[in-house]
Amino acid sequence: MSVPVYVALLHYPIVNRLGQLVTTAVTNMDIHDISRSARTFGMKKYFIVTPIEVQHELVNRILSHWSTESSRQYHPDRVEAVSLIQMVRNFDEVKSAIRAEHGEDPEVVLTDASALPKSVSYAQYRDELATPGRTRPVLIVFGTGWGISDVFYPEVHRILAPVYGPEGAEGYNHLSVRSAVAIILDRLFGK
Amino acid sequence: MSVPVYVALLHYPIVNRLGQLVTTAVTNMDIHDISRSARTFGMKKYFIVTPIEVQHELVNRILSHWSTESSRQYHPDRVEAVSLIQMVRNFDEVKSAIRAEHGEDPEVVLTDASALPKSVSYAQYRDELATPGRTRPVLIVFGTGWGISDVFYPEVHRILAPVYGPEGAEGYNHLSVRSAVAIILDRLFGK
Repeated sequence: MSVPVYVALLHYPIVNRLGQLVTTAVTNMDIHDISRSARTFGMKKYFIVTPIEVQHELVNRILSHWSTESSRQYHPDRVEAVSLIQMVRNFDEVKSAIRAEHGEDPEVVLTDASALPKSVSYAQYRDELATPGRTRPVLIVFGTGWGISDVFYPEVHRILAPVYGPEGAEGYNHLSVRSAVAIILDRLFGK
Repeated sequence: MSVPVYVALLHYPIVNRLGQLVTTAVTNMDIHDISRSARTFGMKKYFIVTPIEVQHELVNRILSHWSTESSRQYHPDRVEAVSLIQMVRNFDEVKSAIRAEHGEDPEVVLTDASALPKSVSYAQYRDELATPGRTRPVLIVFGTGWGISDVFYPEVHRILAPVYGPEGAEGYNHLSVRSAVAIILDRLFGK
Protein backbone atom coordinates (compact mmCIF):
# COMPACT_ATOMS: atom_id res chain seq x y z
CA MET A 1 0.00 0.00 0.00
CA SER A 2 1.73 3.18 -1.14
CA VAL A 3 -0.94 5.57 0.16
CA PRO A 4 -0.48 6.35 3.88
CA VAL A 5 -3.82 5.79 5.62
CA TYR A 6 -4.87 7.02 9.05
CA VAL A 7 -8.00 6.56 11.15
CA ALA A 8 -9.56 8.98 13.61
CA LEU A 9 -12.29 8.35 16.17
CA LEU A 10 -14.20 11.52 17.01
CA HIS A 11 -15.75 12.17 20.43
CA TYR A 12 -16.66 15.70 19.31
CA PRO A 13 -18.59 17.03 17.33
CA ILE A 14 -21.09 14.20 17.88
CA VAL A 15 -24.86 14.09 18.05
CA ASN A 16 -26.82 12.30 20.75
CA ARG A 17 -30.12 10.47 20.26
CA LEU A 18 -31.97 13.80 20.22
CA GLY A 19 -29.70 15.25 17.55
CA GLN A 20 -27.99 17.59 20.03
CA LEU A 21 -24.29 18.41 19.72
CA VAL A 22 -22.37 16.57 22.46
CA THR A 23 -18.96 15.25 23.49
CA THR A 24 -18.90 11.51 24.14
CA ALA A 25 -16.64 9.55 26.50
CA VAL A 26 -13.67 7.46 25.36
CA THR A 27 -14.17 3.77 26.11
CA ASN A 28 -11.48 1.24 26.90
CA MET A 29 -12.86 -1.15 24.29
CA ASP A 30 -12.55 1.48 21.55
CA ILE A 31 -8.89 1.86 22.48
CA HIS A 32 -8.11 -1.83 22.13
CA ASP A 33 -10.40 -3.20 19.44
CA ILE A 34 -9.86 -0.31 17.05
CA SER A 35 -6.09 -0.21 17.54
CA ARG A 36 -5.93 -3.96 16.78
CA SER A 37 -7.97 -3.46 13.61
CA ALA A 38 -5.86 -0.43 12.67
CA ARG A 39 -2.67 -2.47 13.06
CA THR A 40 -4.09 -5.44 11.15
CA PHE A 41 -5.07 -3.30 8.17
CA GLY A 42 -1.89 -1.25 7.97
CA MET A 43 -2.99 2.13 9.34
CA LYS A 44 -0.16 4.58 10.06
CA LYS A 45 -1.81 5.94 13.19
CA TYR A 46 -5.06 5.85 15.12
CA PHE A 47 -6.06 9.29 16.39
CA ILE A 48 -8.44 9.47 19.35
CA VAL A 49 -9.99 12.95 19.28
CA THR A 50 -11.45 14.44 22.44
CA PRO A 51 -11.31 17.96 23.89
CA ILE A 52 -11.80 16.67 27.45
CA GLU A 53 -8.58 16.90 29.43
CA VAL A 54 -9.42 14.21 32.00
CA GLN A 55 -10.06 11.76 29.17
CA HIS A 56 -6.53 12.38 27.93
CA GLU A 57 -5.23 11.63 31.42
CA LEU A 58 -7.33 8.47 31.59
CA VAL A 59 -6.24 7.15 28.21
CA ASN A 60 -2.63 8.05 28.82
CA ARG A 61 -2.76 6.14 32.10
CA ILE A 62 -4.12 3.11 30.25
CA LEU A 63 -1.49 3.47 27.53
CA SER A 64 1.30 3.78 30.10
CA HIS A 65 0.30 0.34 31.38
CA TRP A 66 0.81 -0.97 27.84
CA SER A 67 4.34 0.40 27.69
CA THR A 68 5.69 -1.51 30.68
CA GLU A 69 8.26 -4.25 30.24
CA SER A 70 5.84 -6.95 31.46
CA SER A 71 3.22 -5.86 28.90
CA ARG A 72 5.87 -6.01 26.18
CA GLN A 73 6.75 -9.49 27.32
CA TYR A 74 3.26 -10.96 27.87
CA HIS A 75 1.13 -8.98 25.43
CA PRO A 76 3.41 -7.91 22.59
CA ASP A 77 0.45 -7.88 20.16
CA ARG A 78 -1.49 -5.44 22.31
CA VAL A 79 1.56 -3.24 22.79
CA GLU A 80 2.16 -3.18 19.04
CA ALA A 81 -1.47 -2.19 18.41
CA VAL A 82 -1.86 0.54 21.02
CA SER A 83 1.44 2.10 19.96
CA LEU A 84 -0.50 3.41 16.92
CA ILE A 85 -2.67 5.57 19.17
CA GLN A 86 -2.18 9.32 19.28
CA MET A 87 -4.40 11.37 21.60
CA VAL A 88 -5.39 14.79 20.21
CA ARG A 89 -7.73 17.56 21.35
CA ASN A 90 -9.38 18.49 18.06
CA PHE A 91 -9.49 17.73 14.37
CA ASP A 92 -6.99 20.46 13.46
CA GLU A 93 -4.38 18.59 15.47
CA VAL A 94 -5.06 15.46 13.40
CA LYS A 95 -4.55 17.33 10.15
CA SER A 96 -1.43 19.07 11.49
CA ALA A 97 0.13 15.77 12.49
CA ILE A 98 -0.47 14.28 9.03
CA ARG A 99 0.69 17.44 7.27
CA ALA A 100 3.88 17.43 9.35
CA GLU A 101 4.55 13.87 8.23
CA HIS A 102 3.65 14.06 4.53
CA GLY A 103 3.75 17.74 3.59
CA GLU A 104 0.10 17.86 2.57
CA ASP A 105 -3.33 17.69 4.14
CA PRO A 106 -5.08 14.32 4.05
CA GLU A 107 -8.12 13.43 2.00
CA VAL A 108 -10.77 13.25 4.73
CA VAL A 109 -13.14 10.32 4.34
CA LEU A 110 -16.36 10.30 6.34
CA THR A 111 -18.05 7.08 7.42
CA ASP A 112 -21.69 7.12 8.47
CA ALA A 113 -24.39 4.56 9.16
CA SER A 114 -26.90 6.59 7.13
CA ALA A 115 -26.87 7.00 3.38
CA LEU A 116 -25.45 10.44 2.53
CA PRO A 117 -25.35 12.08 -0.90
CA LYS A 118 -22.46 11.38 -3.30
CA SER A 119 -21.06 8.47 -1.34
CA VAL A 120 -18.42 6.23 -2.90
CA SER A 121 -18.60 2.43 -2.85
CA TYR A 122 -15.92 0.36 -1.11
CA ALA A 123 -14.88 -1.34 -4.33
CA GLN A 124 -14.49 1.98 -6.09
CA TYR A 125 -12.51 3.65 -3.30
CA ARG A 126 -10.33 0.58 -2.87
CA ASP A 127 -9.48 0.82 -6.57
CA GLU A 128 -8.77 4.53 -6.25
CA LEU A 129 -6.33 3.99 -3.40
CA ALA A 130 -4.55 1.30 -5.39
CA THR A 131 -4.09 3.57 -8.42
CA PRO A 132 -0.39 3.80 -9.28
CA GLY A 133 1.05 7.23 -8.48
CA ARG A 134 -1.59 8.01 -5.88
CA THR A 135 0.26 9.22 -2.76
CA ARG A 136 -1.95 11.77 -0.96
CA PRO A 137 -2.51 10.62 2.63
CA VAL A 138 -5.99 9.44 3.56
CA LEU A 139 -7.77 9.94 6.87
CA ILE A 140 -10.83 7.79 7.57
CA VAL A 141 -13.05 9.33 10.23
CA PHE A 142 -15.39 7.39 12.52
CA GLY A 143 -17.93 8.78 14.94
CA THR A 144 -19.25 7.74 18.35
CA GLY A 145 -22.64 8.34 20.01
CA TRP A 146 -25.38 8.73 17.41
CA GLY A 147 -22.88 9.79 14.74
CA ILE A 148 -20.81 12.74 13.57
CA SER A 149 -22.55 16.14 13.59
CA ASP A 150 -23.05 17.94 10.30
CA VAL A 151 -20.98 20.83 11.66
CA PHE A 152 -18.04 18.57 10.75
CA TYR A 153 -19.05 18.22 7.10
CA PRO A 154 -16.98 21.19 5.78
CA GLU A 155 -13.89 19.09 6.65
CA VAL A 156 -15.04 16.15 4.51
CA HIS A 157 -13.79 15.34 0.99
CA ARG A 158 -15.24 11.86 0.47
CA ILE A 159 -18.07 9.84 1.97
CA LEU A 160 -18.11 6.06 2.19
CA ALA A 161 -21.40 4.23 1.67
CA PRO A 162 -23.00 2.67 4.77
CA VAL A 163 -22.29 -0.96 5.63
CA TYR A 164 -25.39 -3.04 5.01
CA GLY A 165 -26.34 -6.60 5.87
CA PRO A 166 -28.34 -8.88 3.57
CA GLU A 167 -31.52 -6.85 4.20
CA GLY A 168 -29.86 -3.79 2.65
CA ALA A 169 -30.80 -0.20 3.47
CA GLU A 170 -34.13 -1.28 4.99
CA GLY A 171 -32.50 -3.66 7.47
CA TYR A 172 -31.00 -3.34 10.93
CA ASN A 173 -28.24 -0.78 10.79
CA HIS A 174 -26.74 -0.47 14.26
CA LEU A 175 -23.28 -1.96 14.32
CA SER A 176 -20.93 -0.91 17.12
CA VAL A 177 -18.27 1.54 15.97
CA ARG A 178 -15.69 -1.17 16.70
CA SER A 179 -17.43 -3.53 14.29
CA ALA A 180 -17.90 -0.78 11.70
CA VAL A 181 -14.18 0.07 11.79
CA ALA A 182 -13.25 -3.59 11.39
CA ILE A 183 -15.58 -4.11 8.43
CA ILE A 184 -14.72 -0.87 6.65
CA LEU A 185 -10.95 -1.39 6.95
CA ASP A 186 -11.39 -4.97 5.75
CA ARG A 187 -13.46 -3.84 2.75
CA LEU A 188 -10.80 -1.32 1.80
CA PHE A 189 -7.59 -3.14 2.75
CA GLY A 190 -8.36 -6.77 3.62
CA LYS A 191 -7.10 -9.82 1.76
CA MET B 1 -30.95 -15.86 2.39
CA SER B 2 -32.68 -19.22 2.39
CA VAL B 3 -30.06 -21.01 4.49
CA PRO B 4 -30.61 -20.45 8.23
CA VAL B 5 -27.32 -19.31 9.76
CA TYR B 6 -26.36 -19.28 13.43
CA VAL B 7 -23.28 -18.11 15.32
CA ALA B 8 -21.78 -19.53 18.51
CA LEU B 9 -19.11 -18.04 20.76
CA LEU B 10 -17.22 -20.73 22.66
CA HIS B 11 -15.76 -20.17 26.14
CA TYR B 12 -14.84 -23.86 26.32
CA PRO B 13 -12.88 -25.78 24.97
CA ILE B 14 -10.39 -22.92 24.58
CA VAL B 15 -6.60 -22.77 24.80
CA ASN B 16 -4.70 -20.15 26.76
CA ARG B 17 -1.38 -18.58 25.75
CA LEU B 18 0.44 -21.71 26.91
CA GLY B 19 -1.77 -23.99 24.84
CA GLN B 20 -3.55 -25.34 27.92
CA LEU B 21 -7.24 -26.24 27.83
CA VAL B 22 -9.21 -23.59 29.71
CA THR B 23 -12.64 -22.01 30.15
CA THR B 24 -12.71 -18.26 29.47
CA ALA B 25 -15.02 -15.62 30.96
CA VAL B 26 -17.93 -14.07 29.11
CA THR B 27 -17.44 -10.33 28.57
CA ASN B 28 -20.16 -7.71 28.37
CA MET B 29 -18.70 -6.35 25.13
CA ASP B 30 -18.96 -9.76 23.47
CA ILE B 31 -22.64 -9.82 24.37
CA HIS B 32 -23.40 -6.47 22.75
CA ASP B 33 -21.04 -6.10 19.82
CA ILE B 34 -21.53 -9.63 18.55
CA SER B 35 -25.32 -9.57 18.95
CA ARG B 36 -25.45 -6.32 16.96
CA SER B 37 -23.32 -7.87 14.19
CA ALA B 38 -25.43 -11.04 14.30
CA ARG B 39 -28.61 -9.00 13.89
CA THR B 40 -27.11 -6.87 11.11
CA PHE B 41 -26.08 -9.89 9.07
CA GLY B 42 -29.27 -11.89 9.51
CA MET B 43 -28.21 -14.60 11.98
CA LYS B 44 -31.07 -16.68 13.42
CA LYS B 45 -29.51 -16.86 16.87
CA TYR B 46 -26.29 -16.10 18.73
CA PHE B 47 -25.34 -18.89 21.13
CA ILE B 48 -23.04 -18.04 24.03
CA VAL B 49 -21.51 -21.31 25.19
CA THR B 50 -20.12 -21.64 28.71
CA PRO B 51 -20.32 -24.43 31.27
CA ILE B 52 -19.92 -22.01 34.18
CA GLU B 53 -23.18 -21.56 36.04
CA VAL B 54 -22.39 -18.16 37.55
CA GLN B 55 -21.67 -16.82 34.07
CA HIS B 56 -25.17 -17.84 33.04
CA GLU B 57 -26.55 -15.95 36.03
CA LEU B 58 -24.44 -12.90 35.15
CA VAL B 59 -25.44 -12.82 31.50
CA ASN B 60 -29.08 -13.47 32.30
CA ARG B 61 -29.01 -10.55 34.73
CA ILE B 62 -27.59 -8.33 31.97
CA LEU B 63 -30.17 -9.62 29.49
CA SER B 64 -33.02 -9.05 31.93
CA HIS B 65 -32.03 -5.37 31.98
CA TRP B 66 -32.47 -5.34 28.21
CA SER B 67 -35.98 -6.72 28.46
CA THR B 68 -37.40 -3.89 30.57
CA GLU B 69 -39.94 -1.47 29.16
CA SER B 70 -37.54 1.47 29.43
CA SER B 71 -34.86 -0.42 27.46
CA ARG B 72 -37.43 -1.21 24.80
CA GLN B 73 -38.32 2.44 24.64
CA TYR B 74 -34.86 4.03 24.74
CA HIS B 75 -32.67 1.33 23.18
CA PRO B 76 -34.89 -0.67 20.82
CA ASP B 77 -31.88 -1.50 18.62
CA ARG B 78 -30.01 -3.05 21.54
CA VAL B 79 -33.07 -4.97 22.66
CA GLU B 80 -33.58 -6.31 19.15
CA ALA B 81 -29.93 -7.43 18.99
CA VAL B 82 -29.63 -9.11 22.38
CA SER B 83 -32.91 -10.96 21.83
CA LEU B 84 -30.89 -13.21 19.48
CA ILE B 85 -28.78 -14.46 22.39
CA GLN B 86 -29.29 -17.94 23.77
CA MET B 87 -27.14 -19.08 26.68
CA VAL B 88 -26.13 -22.76 26.59
CA ARG B 89 -23.84 -24.97 28.66
CA ASN B 90 -22.11 -26.95 25.94
CA PHE B 91 -21.90 -27.51 22.21
CA ASP B 92 -24.39 -30.39 22.23
CA GLU B 93 -27.04 -27.95 23.41
CA VAL B 94 -26.30 -25.71 20.42
CA LYS B 95 -26.73 -28.60 18.00
CA SER B 96 -29.90 -29.79 19.77
CA ALA B 97 -31.47 -26.34 19.53
CA ILE B 98 -30.78 -26.14 15.81
CA ARG B 99 -31.90 -29.72 15.20
CA ALA B 100 -35.14 -29.01 17.06
CA GLU B 101 -35.77 -26.05 14.78
CA HIS B 102 -34.78 -27.51 11.40
CA GLY B 103 -34.87 -31.28 11.78
CA GLU B 104 -31.18 -31.73 10.95
CA ASP B 105 -27.81 -31.00 12.44
CA PRO B 106 -26.04 -27.86 11.25
CA GLU B 107 -22.96 -27.73 9.10
CA VAL B 108 -20.37 -26.59 11.66
CA VAL B 109 -17.98 -23.97 10.35
CA LEU B 110 -14.80 -23.23 12.31
CA THR B 111 -13.13 -19.84 12.24
CA ASP B 112 -9.53 -19.51 13.33
CA ALA B 113 -6.83 -16.84 13.16
CA SER B 114 -4.29 -19.44 12.02
CA ALA B 115 -4.20 -21.12 8.66
CA LEU B 116 -5.62 -24.65 9.00
CA PRO B 117 -5.66 -27.38 6.33
CA LYS B 118 -8.49 -27.56 3.77
CA SER B 119 -9.93 -24.14 4.57
CA VAL B 120 -12.52 -22.59 2.27
CA SER B 121 -12.31 -19.00 1.02
CA TYR B 122 -15.02 -16.48 1.88
CA ALA B 123 -15.99 -15.97 -1.76
CA GLN B 124 -16.34 -19.71 -2.27
CA TYR B 125 -18.39 -20.32 0.87
CA ARG B 126 -20.58 -17.30 0.16
CA ASP B 127 -21.34 -18.81 -3.25
CA GLU B 128 -22.06 -22.19 -1.70
CA LEU B 129 -24.57 -20.72 0.73
CA ALA B 130 -26.30 -18.90 -2.12
CA THR B 131 -26.67 -22.08 -4.18
CA PRO B 132 -30.36 -22.62 -5.01
CA GLY B 133 -31.82 -25.55 -3.10
CA ARG B 134 -29.27 -25.38 -0.32
CA THR B 135 -31.18 -25.44 2.98
CA ARG B 136 -29.04 -27.21 5.59
CA PRO B 137 -28.57 -24.88 8.58
CA VAL B 138 -25.11 -23.44 9.14
CA LEU B 139 -23.41 -22.75 12.45
CA ILE B 140 -20.37 -20.48 12.44
CA VAL B 141 -18.21 -21.00 15.52
CA PHE B 142 -15.92 -18.39 17.07
CA GLY B 143 -13.43 -18.85 19.87
CA THR B 144 -12.20 -16.71 22.76
CA GLY B 145 -8.87 -16.68 24.61
CA TRP B 146 -6.06 -17.93 22.35
CA GLY B 147 -8.50 -19.86 20.16
CA ILE B 148 -10.55 -23.04 20.02
CA SER B 149 -8.82 -26.22 21.24
CA ASP B 150 -8.24 -29.04 18.78
CA VAL B 151 -10.36 -31.29 21.01
CA PHE B 152 -13.27 -29.49 19.31
CA TYR B 153 -12.17 -30.43 15.78
CA PRO B 154 -14.22 -33.66 15.52
CA GLU B 155 -17.32 -31.40 15.54
CA VAL B 156 -16.11 -29.38 12.54
CA HIS B 157 -17.26 -29.83 8.94
CA ARG B 158 -15.79 -26.74 7.29
CA ILE B 159 -12.99 -24.30 8.10
CA LEU B 160 -12.96 -20.67 6.99
CA ALA B 161 -9.64 -19.12 5.96
CA PRO B 162 -8.11 -16.60 8.38
CA VAL B 163 -8.83 -12.88 7.92
CA TYR B 164 -5.71 -11.13 6.70
CA GLY B 165 -4.75 -7.49 6.32
CA PRO B 166 -2.68 -6.14 3.42
CA GLU B 167 0.47 -7.81 4.79
CA GLY B 168 -1.17 -11.22 4.34
CA ALA B 169 -0.24 -14.30 6.35
CA GLU B 170 3.04 -12.76 7.49
CA GLY B 171 1.37 -9.66 8.97
CA TYR B 172 -0.23 -8.80 12.28
CA ASN B 173 -2.99 -11.28 12.97
CA HIS B 174 -4.58 -10.38 16.28
CA LEU B 175 -8.05 -8.96 15.74
CA SER B 176 -10.46 -8.99 18.67
CA VAL B 177 -13.11 -11.71 18.39
CA ARG B 178 -15.69 -8.92 18.07
CA SER B 179 -13.88 -7.53 15.04
CA ALA B 180 -13.36 -10.99 13.56
CA VAL B 181 -17.08 -11.79 13.85
CA ALA B 182 -17.99 -8.47 12.19
CA ILE B 183 -15.58 -9.00 9.30
CA ILE B 184 -16.42 -12.65 8.71
CA LEU B 185 -20.19 -12.08 8.71
CA ASP B 186 -19.69 -9.12 6.38
CA ARG B 187 -17.57 -11.19 4.01
CA LEU B 188 -20.21 -13.91 3.90
CA PHE B 189 -23.44 -11.88 4.09
CA GLY B 190 -22.67 -8.16 3.67
CA LYS B 191 -23.87 -5.97 0.85
